[in-house]
Amino acid sequence: MEYTSSPGLRQRVGQWVESRPVQNFIIVLICFNAITLGLETFDIVQHYAGGPLLIIERAVLTVFVIEIALKLFAFDYRFFREGWNVFDFVIVAISLLPDSGPFSVLRALRILRVLRLVAKVGRLRMIVESLLKAIPSIGWIAFLLGLVFYIFGVMGTKLFGESFPEDFGHLGLTLFSLFQVMTLESWSEEIARPVMQVYPLAWLYFVVFILLSAFTVLNLFIGIIVNTMQERHMEEADAKHQQTEAKAHEERERMLRLIEELHEKVERLENRLGKR
Amino acid sequence: MEYTSSPGLRQRVGQWVESRPVQNFIIVLICFNAITLGLETFDIVQHYAGGPLLIIERAVLTVFVIEIALKLFAFDYRFFREGWNVFDFVIVAISLLPDSGPFSVLRALRILRVLRLVAKVGRLRMIVESLLKAIPSIGWIAFLLGLVFYIFGVMGTKLFGESFPEDFGHLGLTLFSLFQVMTLESWSEEIARPVMQVYPLAWLYFVVFILLSAFTVLNLFIGIIVNTMQERHMEEADAKHQQTEAKAHEERERMLRLIEELHEKVERLENRLGKR
Amino acid sequence: MEYTSSPGLRQRVGQWVESRPVQNFIIVLICFNAITLGLETFDIVQHYAGGPLLIIERAVLTVFVIEIALKLFAFDYRFFREGWNVFDFVIVAISLLPDSGPFSVLRALRILRVLRLVAKVGRLRMIVESLLKAIPSIGWIAFLLGLVFYIFGVMGTKLFGESFPEDFGHLGLTLFSLFQVMTLESWSEEIARPVMQVYPLAWLYFVVFILLSAFTVLNLFIGIIVNTMQERHMEEADAKHQQTEAKAHEERERMLRLIEELHEKVERLENRLGKR
Amino acid sequence: MEYTSSPGLRQRVGQWVESRPVQNFIIVLICFNAITLGLETFDIVQHYAGGPLLIIERAVLTVFVIEIALKLFAFDYRFFREGWNVFDFVIVAISLLPDSGPFSVLRALRILRVLRLVAKVGRLRMIVESLLKAIPSIGWIAFLLGLVFYIFGVMGTKLFGESFPEDFGHLGLTLFSLFQVMTLESWSEEIARPVMQVYPLAWLYFVVFILLSAFTVLNLFIGIIVNTMQERHMEEADAKHQQTEAKAHEERERMLRLIEELHEKVERLENRLGKR
Repeated sequence: MEYTSSPGLRQRVGQWVESRPVQNFIIVLICFNAITLGLETFDIVQHYAGGPLLIIERAVLTVFVIEIALKLFAFDYRFFREGWNVFDFVIVAISLLPDSGPFSVLRALRILRVLRLVAKVGRLRMIVESLLKAIPSIGWIAFLLGLVFYIFGVMGTKLFGESFPEDFGHLGLTLFSLFQVMTLESWSEEIARPVMQVYPLAWLYFVVFILLSAFTVLNLFIGIIVNTMQERHMEEADAKHQQTEAKAHEERERMLRLIEELHEKVERLENRLGKR
Repeated sequence: MEYTSSPGLRQRVGQWVESRPVQNFIIVLICFNAITLGLETFDIVQHYAGGPLLIIERAVLTVFVIEIALKLFAFDYRFFREGWNVFDFVIVAISLLPDSGPFSVLRALRILRVLRLVAKVGRLRMIVESLLKAIPSIGWIAFLLGLVFYIFGVMGTKLFGESFPEDFGHLGLTLFSLFQVMTLESWSEEIARPVMQVYPLAWLYFVVFILLSAFTVLNLFIGIIVNTMQERHMEEADAKHQQTEAKAHEERERMLRLIEELHEKVERLENRLGKR
Repeated sequence: MEYTSSPGLRQRVGQWVESRPVQNFIIVLICFNAITLGLETFDIVQHYAGGPLLIIERAVLTVFVIEIALKLFAFDYRFFREGWNVFDFVIVAISLLPDSGPFSVLRALRILRVLRLVAKVGRLRMIVESLLKAIPSIGWIAFLLGLVFYIFGVMGTKLFGESFPEDFGHLGLTLFSLFQVMTLESWSEEIARPVMQVYPLAWLYFVVFILLSAFTVLNLFIGIIVNTMQERHMEEADAKHQQTEAKAHEERERMLRLIEELHEKVERLENRLGKR
Repeated sequence: MEYTSSPGLRQRVGQWVESRPVQNFIIVLICFNAITLGLETFDIVQHYAGGPLLIIERAVLTVFVIEIALKLFAFDYRFFREGWNVFDFVIVAISLLPDSGPFSVLRALRILRVLRLVAKVGRLRMIVESLLKAIPSIGWIAFLLGLVFYIFGVMGTKLFGESFPEDFGHLGLTLFSLFQVMTLESWSEEIARPVMQVYPLAWLYFVVFILLSAFTVLNLFIGIIVNTMQERHMEEADAKHQQTEAKAHEERERMLRLIEELHEKVERLENRLGKR
């Protein structure tokens, strides 16, 4: 994080909140919170230690809010420039939403706070960033896979929707069924075979979809593998190659210099002979 | 697309229909049509907006037919020289077939029209072409896999056909069951275990088939992976290697030139001494 | 195939039976036989064309026996030196065994004859040979996988055998169940969950087995992939590298020669000056 | 193993117990024990040969204990310095625990003794060591996978725990269910679809979890593959590259020497001319 040129309160607050000890304390707090949120899921713990857990929960959340608030104060709009800060902000913000009544599902989302660990621990951040970097390289293949899903989704709904309303009743159900078929889960016994008893040629639909999706997913994987390899493997190979090449270049340079010196010597010889 | 030498009406029509704005309009229309075809699958949309959807459908199809007709007029027989044009033509032609009565299944195939997107968007075309290019390299392994399927298909039908008419009743059913076994879907609980209760040694048939097909499919995948790697990874590595090599070659050339000049100088020196 | 030095009847028979036309005829016959054996599995074909099919079957078998007999006559004991010949011989021999009564299962094995295609078609032979070549490199990992299976097999039989006689009744059943678990087929719903209702800690057994077997199988695959890559990919990369290196070597050689010539010239110069 | 400087009884015992013949005898005994432990699982063998098997079991165990005792005597505390020795010691120690009453499960663990084979056979040891070496490189990705499991575990228990106590009743059950979902076993038919009938949006939970875990596991695999490749593949490529480079270096060195000699010659020439 960069600061404005005048080293005032904001800068000092920013430096303090981003200092190693404070950040390590936050990391420990996230881990501790992860454990208490895990304990909450056990009825027996909830029953005997529900009160203390709630207090801990509120205390932890308060610390998190103060951390974010201090950062916001220190960096103001520049805080949102970095993706990981936005990620952090959104996760803490979710915890502040009312989690009763119709939003009770948000209580379950509080565990997402553990993801802050990814933003805080350098190595995890690096891995997630490298995983995310692999995505654009496979964007178009993912789009192609989406196209295959959409085409088979519309086709499946029209062909089998009436007879199998549970699996192919509307586009959403069909897309879920196709996702299940792509993962090869009970695709034949629970989906393809029943459908084939009504439409004997339905095997074509399922076999073609499985082959197409397997082929596309395989290419997605190859895309990621080749990408990762090029980054890691190639870099190392390149470094070594550059090293030997640098040594060879040095040797050639030395030869060149020697030859040039020879030139000068012979020239001097020539001149001396010429002078006579 | 090339044109005949006389720049007449045909050429101008061809240029216009293949121009960026017209093609982009077609792409937008394909996407729009994809959405309307998707909406059609919802009963509620069909009920309230069935009429407008039918009009849109007909309008879009008319534009597609006009586009193909203009291209046919512009390039006549040369239109069919390019594979993607034939693909385009067939997809639009399917939409023109009567889709009532026994052909009602063709209504479901109209969504295939979205595939035109692949022919129109350069990046998708490139990816599909590169996927297709991977096929010949794996042709013989695919043939071997087909052989394994055929042998186990005939064998399975003869061995288990009588006792299990549903899974192994005839060659077609057995091949479908084997495909299911290859994808490992319920192969044991629903297929192998029941068969093994009648023929205790049937596990040999299934285990050998799974090992053989897994090994062959693995080799299919390796074929594709190695192929893709060689194309992408190698090219880059090669380019870099060529570059360093070119630099080394240049340095050697410079040394050679210097040595040759030295030769000349020493020769001049020799001649001068000789003249005396 | 090599022949004895005296070019007699045997050699001529050998050359004839191994000539392209005869072998191509055998290949066509194998394919034709594959189709007739496939047709036999359909009851309707069996009913209307059972007689002709039987005649064809016998005729084809006769040709196959004659081919092998001629080869045996031509090469005698040397025939068995090549693995593919032994393979061929065994497959045809199986067809000659009586296939009625207790051996009726052998009738189903006749389709294995189609495998002769692999021995006859060069490309298939090459692929199968390269697949087989990959096996030794993974021998020890396969042994390790066997060890994991044996240990979990004995352990599973002792732990769950009494309560689950169907899945873990004896070592054979347990090994089959473990193979099913390794392929991840219904491992949880049909095997692990029922067992866990009696032995709550059984999840440890299954999760550890799945992780261990997945890790070992992954290493088996990596072994094969790395092996295949090294063979194909490396060879090509090497060839290119050797080529650029050869060019560089040539350039250096030329420089060396030029420098040596320079040496001679300077020496001549020296001698001439010395003579004076 | 190293010994103390004074070559006494301890050293001689150590040399004897680690000698090839003794170790080979132990290996044979382990294999023999593996077979007898396997035979024990068959009721019929247990019935007719239970007595002899028990005697063999005790005899084998005695030999194992003596081997370890001798090694402990020979190397005392240094015995525990090597990981494989500790592994060996623990496995034999487990066999000495009382295996009746509440510890009857330990009888099933005796088969783990076969794992001693891994410690004794060099090739297996090497493979297991190389498999273990792959683990650190994937440690952080494994941690990330653990994080994903923990987050979805807590979330799943909170969201679905009440309605589906069998699959999501407490954190342990949810983690097991998630492991099952990750292996794609019956994830849809037995877990996701029932849950979706109560919570229609649950598909989001399952689809996101499958995509995230598949992506992370894929990266785990890539980590292992790239690692293994770099070790094996790169080393070989490097060796070859170093070799050609060494040759090129030698040639350049020879050229350099020649040029330097030329320098001397020209200098001598200069000096001679200068002297005049």
